[in-house]
Amino acid sequence: MTKAPTPRTRVKRLHEKAAYDADTIKAVLDAQPLAHIGHLIDGAPAVTPTLHWREGDRVYWHGSAASRMIKAATGQPVCLTVTLLDGLVLARSGLEHSVNFRSVMVFGVAEAVTDQAAKARHLEVMMEQMYPGRWAQLRPMTAQELKATAVLSLPISEASAKIGAGMPTDPPGDMDWPVWAGLVGIRQVLDDAQPDGTPKGPAPQIRRF
Amino acid sequence: MTKAPTPRTRVKRLHEKAAYDADTIKAVLDAQPLAHIGHLIDGAPAVTPTLHWREGDRVYWHGSAASRMIKAATGQPVCLTVTLLDGLVLARSGLEHSVNFRSVMVFGVAEAVTDQAAKARHLEVMMEQMYPGRWAQLRPMTAQELKATAVLSLPISEASAKIGAGMPTDPPGDMDWPVWAGLVGIRQVLDDAQPDGTPKGPAPQIRRF
Repeated sequence: MTKAPTPRTRVKRLHEKAAYDADTIKAVLDAQPLAHIGHLIDGAPAVTPTLHWREGDRVYWHGSAASRMIKAATGQPVCLTVTLLDGLVLARSGLEHSVNFRSVMVFGVAEAVTDQAAKARHLEVMMEQMYPGRWAQLRPMTAQELKATAVLSLPISEASAKIGAGMPTDPPGDMDWPVWAGLVGIRQVLDDAQPDGTPKGPAPQIRRF
Repeated sequence: MTKAPTPRTRVKRLHEKAAYDADTIKAVLDAQPLAHIGHLIDGAPAVTPTLHWREGDRVYWHGSAASRMIKAATGQPVCLTVTLLDGLVLARSGLEHSVNFRSVMVFGVAEAVTDQAAKARHLEVMMEQMYPGRWAQLRPMTAQELKATAVLSLPISEASAKIGAGMPTDPPGDMDWPVWAGLVGIRQVLDDAQPDGTPKGPAPQIRRF
């Protein structure tokens, strides 16, 4: 899966922050379940947030079969972007201010999983990646629920990562400017689980955060 | 600015979560500086993460004048989407699992700020919204830096918000299923500021988180 960038995945600005290797791309995808799907509505771009998950060399997302994004994306060129905002980088000049981040863009034609049994397995994988052991504990999915749910995927082949990390990189001539400079990290944290009514069984395990 | 939805901003799925009023839309935009810009590359959608800020009834973002996203977006139809992932909602069935979130989509044609003095003022507003009082402390921007920086904007007119909040909404027949159900909140938190070398002056104020 490691391959040279294509024209649209080649990172042009700050290309020293770019990565095209599969391990780096997969690690970013796996670190953040929120994705933004770029698709077209009447020829103009639209960006819809959704959850995604990865199975091997493909990335998946799901939605109501009636959703506009699902209908617009199926069989069409899309871009799936995942971003983690990791920190604020405060430099001595405005230009050198930036953020630390990890992002991945995956381009391709979104393919629908049409086989119902295969779709059910993918939904189980999604659930199990987020909440290990939970699928078997749930009220089982009905055939109607499965039919109403669409699962789309893209190969992670035309993809790139861009990663910014570390302290500001002011030019030497700015280093003595009398202003505080440095880094403020940003993290996504989970609060304590709040049960809905009287808990039936233990709180779930949660992964991917 | 409050107006009826257009065909592409009308929220179709779970429309009870939709909002089209200016106050709700602005509050979501102001709560999260990370945006995803949907634009076209050779007619196919691409989604680029960037920071945004709001001034009144317009939303702004910036970048290197040489950036592919800036060049592709200028004068073209784009979609700016801002999303906050607020929590995990664990229901009694797979179908009812969801996330709590706040998101806004803004559609329109991206307009570049071409006047250099106006561009400098917008960059100052961006900095001051994130770090109040900081602009005046920085090594001043040079004419060359200003020229190399592009500022784009959209009116917040064709826009919608979608907000999911609260506990799972399992149907009554599922409520006794013997599995833990409830909510796990997600928050973005800032770590302590880490100075780059010996601090020159106090650590900055930070807003918008």
